[in-house]
Amino acid sequence: MNRIDESRRHALMRLAALPVALLAGATAANVVLAQATPHRSKLLIQVSDNDSKKWALALNNAKNVQQDLGRDNVDIEIVAYGPGIGMLRMDSEVGGRVTEAMKDGVAVVACENTMTNQKISKDDMLPKIGYVKAGVTEIMAKQQQGWSYIRP
Amino acid sequence: MNRIDESRRHALMRLAALPVALLAGATAANVVLAQATPHRSKLLIQVSDNDSKKWALALNNAKNVQQDLGRDNVDIEIVAYGPGIGMLRMDSEVGGRVTEAMKDGVAVVACENTMTNQKISKDDMLPKIGYVKAGVTEIMAKQQQGWSYIRP
Amino acid sequence: MNRIDESRRHALMRLAALPVALLAGATAANVVLAQATPHRSKLLIQVSDNDSKKWALALNNAKNVQQDLGRDNVDIEIVAYGPGIGMLRMDSEVGGRVTEAMKDGVAVVACENTMTNQKISKDDMLPKIGYVKAGVTEIMAKQQQGWSYIRP
Repeated sequence: MNRIDESRRHALMRLAALPVALLAGATAANVVLAQATPHRSKLLIQVSDNDSKKWALALNNAKNVQQDLGRDNVDIEIVAYGPGIGMLRMDSEVGGRVTEAMKDGVAVVACENTMTNQKISKDDMLPKIGYVKAGVTEIMAKQQQGWSYIRP
Repeated sequence: MNRIDESRRHALMRLAALPVALLAGATAANVVLAQATPHRSKLLIQVSDNDSKKWALALNNAKNVQQDLGRDNVDIEIVAYGPGIGMLRMDSEVGGRVTEAMKDGVAVVACENTMTNQKISKDDMLPKIGYVKAGVTEIMAKQQQGWSYIRP
Repeated sequence: MNRIDESRRHALMRLAALPVALLAGATAANVVLAQATPHRSKLLIQVSDNDSKKWALALNNAKNVQQDLGRDNVDIEIVAYGPGIGMLRMDSEVGGRVTEAMKDGVAVVACENTMTNQKISKDDMLPKIGYVKAGVTEIMAKQQQGWSYIRP
């Protein structure tokens, strides 16, 4: 029952959006094109363990997905936070592989909250990585945007 | 091909739902309002390790998300099951913090299946926590309702 | 702002799909039927630890969900990869339970990439299990198809 009510509510929301959409001036032609565009795979990989084997596994996972789907067909982001932050420190055992992954198009980001808590500065971190305010919020936001989640 | 077929099917389902929706008496006005309402973030945090550091990390994660998004803009639920059930026992090392999190609006629930298996009664558990029959089913249901998932 | 734009875009995409849908010849009747069909729960369970307790927990999780929702109302797939591959080897400590789970309708698949890396052949594996090229890709694909994800 509940599900059907929810579907009904969604249908209503869509119906109401149509005039707005039409006012926005889009044409059916470009919209059909958008719909036919193949779905781009998106994968978020969480690293939250202080365990270099887990770090290596996360990097293997990214590489495998790129090989399996083709590097250009998938967006991959690795988020390191909490006890996993060491993966992205300058002295990380997998530092070379992280750099290589970024060259291959994998986004790699560190959690600034964790860095503040552990008194780590950006100078302590691998060059060229990205930063987010809160790793958990990033992971949540990406899932809401349709990214798949994996925690190796 | 498959994806386009699926989209087509969905469009059809929505089309068919319109008359039903109209009969339900909703007006475009309140519907547009519903659509403009900012999306409420929802995060489920799984605790299934017998590891007090993981329990602390789960609580940190909840706190960080509340600080980052604003406590009123996000629903958070922590589900403890299997080896993680100890987090919610009366003698839990993080018991005080669990109580604090609940005061801050975080929902905290224990898996009754696990309690039965481990011969734990509600008297052994922290006061004011919630209960679900099966933690895994709860985690699955929440994801189906659009909640993000994180396993610290 | 961004979210509303996205909703608008989606509404447009749906609007454009309607004529296509109508050409496909579906009637409102069968579509409403489709919508009323109860949602089938789908759960993917990831096993990536070399830890027989985790393997047992994964199997417990599957069993609990089947008991809670009814075996016929839920699809469950266990994917073992990386350090978790041992769960599906002939000499696995939980081999008997894996076989039992498959009899109960749980799909169990091993990652061929992992097997290649660890020089394991199908002869080393439990009989009747399934195989996927890359476990991570399988996990990602299933999530994109609406499956819930759990990592015990």
